[in-house]
Amino acid sequence: MALVNEYYLRLPGSYLFADIAKRVTAYKVSHPKQRVISLGIGDVTRPLAPAVVEAMHKAADEMAVKETFRGYGPEHGYDFLREAIMKGDFLTRGIHLDKDEIFVNDGAKSDTANIQELLRWDNSVALTDPVYPVYVDSNAMIGRAGKFEDGKWTDITYLPCTAENNFTPELPDHRVDMIYLCYPNNPTGTVLTKDELRKWVNFALRNEAVIMYDAAYQAYIQDPEIPHSIYEIKGARKCAIEFHSYSKTAGFTGVRCGYTVIPKEVMAKTIDDKDVQLNALWERRQSTKFNGTSYISQRAAEATYSEEGHRQTRQTIAYYMENARIMRETLSKAGYAVYGGENAPYLWVKTPGGMDSWKFFDTLLYGCGLVCTPGVGFGPSGEGYFRLTSFGNREDVEEAMERFKTL
Amino acid sequence: MALVNEYYLRLPGSYLFADIAKRVTAYKVSHPKQRVISLGIGDVTRPLAPAVVEAMHKAADEMAVKETFRGYGPEHGYDFLREAIMKGDFLTRGIHLDKDEIFVNDGAKSDTANIQELLRWDNSVALTDPVYPVYVDSNAMIGRAGKFEDGKWTDITYLPCTAENNFTPELPDHRVDMIYLCYPNNPTGTVLTKDELRKWVNFALRNEAVIMYDAAYQAYIQDPEIPHSIYEIKGARKCAIEFHSYSKTAGFTGVRCGYTVIPKEVMAKTIDDKDVQLNALWERRQSTKFNGTSYISQRAAEATYSEEGHRQTRQTIAYYMENARIMRETLSKAGYAVYGGENAPYLWVKTPGGMDSWKFFDTLLYGCGLVCTPGVGFGPSGEGYFRLTSFGNREDVEEAMERFKTL
Repeated sequence: MALVNEYYLRLPGSYLFADIAKRVTAYKVSHPKQRVISLGIGDVTRPLAPAVVEAMHKAADEMAVKETFRGYGPEHGYDFLREAIMKGDFLTRGIHLDKDEIFVNDGAKSDTANIQELLRWDNSVALTDPVYPVYVDSNAMIGRAGKFEDGKWTDITYLPCTAENNFTPELPDHRVDMIYLCYPNNPTGTVLTKDELRKWVNFALRNEAVIMYDAAYQAYIQDPEIPHSIYEIKGARKCAIEFHSYSKTAGFTGVRCGYTVIPKEVMAKTIDDKDVQLNALWERRQSTKFNGTSYISQRAAEATYSEEGHRQTRQTIAYYMENARIMRETLSKAGYAVYGGENAPYLWVKTPGGMDSWKFFDTLLYGCGLVCTPGVGFGPSGEGYFRLTSFGNREDVEEAMERFKTL
Repeated sequence: MALVNEYYLRLPGSYLFADIAKRVTAYKVSHPKQRVISLGIGDVTRPLAPAVVEAMHKAADEMAVKETFRGYGPEHGYDFLREAIMKGDFLTRGIHLDKDEIFVNDGAKSDTANIQELLRWDNSVALTDPVYPVYVDSNAMIGRAGKFEDGKWTDITYLPCTAENNFTPELPDHRVDMIYLCYPNNPTGTVLTKDELRKWVNFALRNEAVIMYDAAYQAYIQDPEIPHSIYEIKGARKCAIEFHSYSKTAGFTGVRCGYTVIPKEVMAKTIDDKDVQLNALWERRQSTKFNGTSYISQRAAEATYSEEGHRQTRQTIAYYMENARIMRETLSKAGYAVYGGENAPYLWVKTPGGMDSWKFFDTLLYGCGLVCTPGVGFGPSGEGYFRLTSFGNREDVEEAMERFKTL
């Protein structure tokens, strides 16, 4: 008799964005004439850069001819892309990586969810709150999170990030084994200075913990003082795994490509205190459970590092950041307390009068046909906030801001 | 202190094909003038069908324009592809599936490896031997396989498939919870009749077990009596999950697309004997740990169902099957005992004089510059056999057969 993995049954309700979609559908049915504008889901809307599309056509043509056809690629990605990453994303910031410290994947979601498999199921987990739900759920599915009670998992250490502490998480007062950090942060849009990030690296080194550092939004950083990679901090090569994605950097949410960096010095312990290289374990994991990323997607990713490709993708990012500026200014003027949106595509906004997040979601939807993401969907410390994204079309953003004013 | 998942450390050596690659490299260094022909790794060599390439170009162009740009797709795949699958692969055989019983993925390897997550770590596993290593290793990584001793995992039920039993596995004499079957079989190239497959479905129903049915090679079946899908057997909708792939069907090893079928009737039990739908759990798993398959790859897969696309991909399969015929005939005439290769792209051959698999591998490599896959790499019952694939170019296959004759 096959028994189910009961940890799955402890997961609360369905996935946040599915809940939102249901409410929006219900609204649309009862308000067929209102055009709904979504500032909710973090999906991009601008087309791919011409240099990227050109690379995709070229790759498709190669696949059409026997001499240049490509079958299975290496599970960890093609060297042409690993080398472009090494140079384009790291050497330019003075970070030296080995080619085989880079694992190309089909987007950061898979790897941020799967990385925890390398560690024992009973390792302890700390994460910032509010947080991207994937970190929490992937740990809950293997039993590492305990039980879900009163909106929280019993075995997870939540690190609150709210206006009260300026969205800067405090170090835990106890040892933890795994720490999830995402900066620029999803959902709050806030960043961490080098000094603050250094505290985490030192904490991890002291506690022999591993930091899972999600840098998916690093391309949105405008302030030259803010770190783009945790490896800008001394010692991070010994304790941090870093996740990157082309989803937001180059509009690849439908193309599917990203990468994970695991320096060879990052170790976990056996119970008899021997060191094991996580890089080697991940290589083993990927060669067993993954068969490489689409060749065409890898060539597309490579094209973002060419002079043209880089310039074109930067233009799109600038477009989104101008959206963010418009939203920030409008909402601030309208009296909202607005955070983020300066080095990130996300704005994190306090609900007026301390209204709860889902109530504000409904107010905004039924009041003016706008969709936001309720902050509490990202964790208990998100209660009383909502998230807006800057990934819309300019006209939609402008109209949404007009509607906001009427609320 | 982060502790490692010690089950990973129980995995023996490295991955089979990595071992082979190392030996081949060593040979090439010492024999720089010999052109090595590989009949080993199961990778295709023919270019993509023109209809597929056309679909890829069209999709790339859509991504270049705001109005037709696609961001995140549904985690379970686009409806256009799920509907094409439903009609093209199932309705034509009289099998009715619901659209949401189909989960599009980035190739069968990911899902055949990840599916076991849905079940408790201590469920018992049976699998045919020899076998595709992914089923074994993915179960070992979560602790379900026990320890690796004398070439076998202590907690796995091996179902030997050898010439002695005509490569037809016998039902286990005890209850098991999870059963992995792959037909047409990798590596043996043998098939299961409807009567034989029915025995397995009935066994699973009696024992409330789940069958993981890997149908990745179904497109190679020539005999009209051999089932293409386990759902051709009555009762299979209650106990079987089926995996498909475009890798071998349409040369997608570098494009990355496949799909998994989980009928809504397939259940696993909670410890207090309640039924849980595996379809719903997999939807939850995928929406947490996967972000959908590349849009371009999904359009490419859809194109294999058009009249043109279907005809073109069938031509390529016919080409490979002609390779298989040539190999089968040559080797049989040369006195080898050859199995498979009639409804599958794989040939499974007895080593001469009972030589062990790796010894024959070296003999073949050093004797005439040919690469095969040693049977024992697929499990203990593979000892004394080697695998050849029919995915090469005709000229290579013909030359390889000439070389074989000189051995």
